[in-house]
Amino acid sequence: MATVKVHGSVFSTASQRVLVCLHEKELDFEFVPVDMSSGDHKKPPFLSLNPFGQLPAFEEGDLKLFESRAITQYISHTNPNKGNQLICQDPKKMAIMSVWMEVEAHEFDPPSSKLAWEQAFKPMFGMTTDVAVVEENEAKLAKVLDIYEARLAQSKYMGGDCFTLVDLHHLPNIQYLMDTQSKKLFDSRPHVRTWCSDILARPNWLKVVAMKNN
Amino acid sequence: MATVKVHGSVFSTASQRVLVCLHEKELDFEFVPVDMSSGDHKKPPFLSLNPFGQLPAFEEGDLKLFESRAITQYISHTNPNKGNQLICQDPKKMAIMSVWMEVEAHEFDPPSSKLAWEQAFKPMFGMTTDVAVVEENEAKLAKVLDIYEARLAQSKYMGGDCFTLVDLHHLPNIQYLMDTQSKKLFDSRPHVRTWCSDILARPNWLKVVAMKNN
Repeated sequence: MATVKVHGSVFSTASQRVLVCLHEKELDFEFVPVDMSSGDHKKPPFLSLNPFGQLPAFEEGDLKLFESRAITQYISHTNPNKGNQLICQDPKKMAIMSVWMEVEAHEFDPPSSKLAWEQAFKPMFGMTTDVAVVEENEAKLAKVLDIYEARLAQSKYMGGDCFTLVDLHHLPNIQYLMDTQSKKLFDSRPHVRTWCSDILARPNWLKVVAMKNN
Repeated sequence: MATVKVHGSVFSTASQRVLVCLHEKELDFEFVPVDMSSGDHKKPPFLSLNPFGQLPAFEEGDLKLFESRAITQYISHTNPNKGNQLICQDPKKMAIMSVWMEVEAHEFDPPSSKLAWEQAFKPMFGMTTDVAVVEENEAKLAKVLDIYEARLAQSKYMGGDCFTLVDLHHLPNIQYLMDTQSKKLFDSRPHVRTWCSDILARPNWLKVVAMKNN
């Protein structure tokens, strides 16, 4: 396997998704920081890796990928025998996993990303949180988490019996929201609360949190 | 293989995505219409198939799936030798396909769905098109299609050398936009225009268009 390079930022949720996946699979990689404050992700050298100018980008020899969820799937499919298993081999179980991967991307990510932006990122940049946007997106996220509560009453993890990419894809936004008032949405639902405590405590995730805090 | 049932509407873009996939794979299925005008998709019998109350839902024996892109992937992976090949076996080619599947879902679908809603669905329901929303989303879609134009100058199809799920996932929204002023965004880009003509003329897609028009 050629050396893996991840071009990203330790603060970007999509970059974190790829980093935790590489740690879970116990793969070596080179992390290439992209300076978002200088707009480097919107300039030509980075745009040749991802024409949409979004972090992260992934290189393995001549293979260049972007879109964090496509990258984590590639890593997991091509390294079945390394680190932790993050996907299911059985096609029906894989299909159920795919359903919940789509749910994370289309239902969970939009409101949780907006809540993280308003409450975690804006204060970092000295900007003011928009309370109306927070209220609107907390209401949306609450409805999604009601369905998660029912799912987690039946299944230990969101994708099935064991930790998979479905759970992993949730980690960055949940981590940011744990330091905001939106934490209450997770804490007030017992199965969701237990699931969060479990996945946030994974040593491979804590390595990514440590990169951000250093 | 147990009988496949698709619960959906011939007008719903996500249902159409699953229907064209089943036709491409030459699979028999039972189509179960869900009456959206009565809100049947938000009521208990349907909610047991998809707790989010969105069309379509898919059943194959005891396997119940939702999220159209998860369903098309399941169908394609479990029927490799039927109908047309819609995915790549090579892991690197599959990874490139995954990247562009994510792009369709996250970059193309949001503005194109909003444009279809404003210009194709609202008039059907006697509602008024919001010109400002159309302008805003045409600007967003134009940027995405600039990147598609560059991609299609290098690659005959969006996912690679041959027609795959990446192209298939685009069909429903493109078809709706062909009858609106937003058609100009596709027509003014030569590679995008050729690609649209090609994929919209596929006999298996025309079967889905015929279901809608009957």
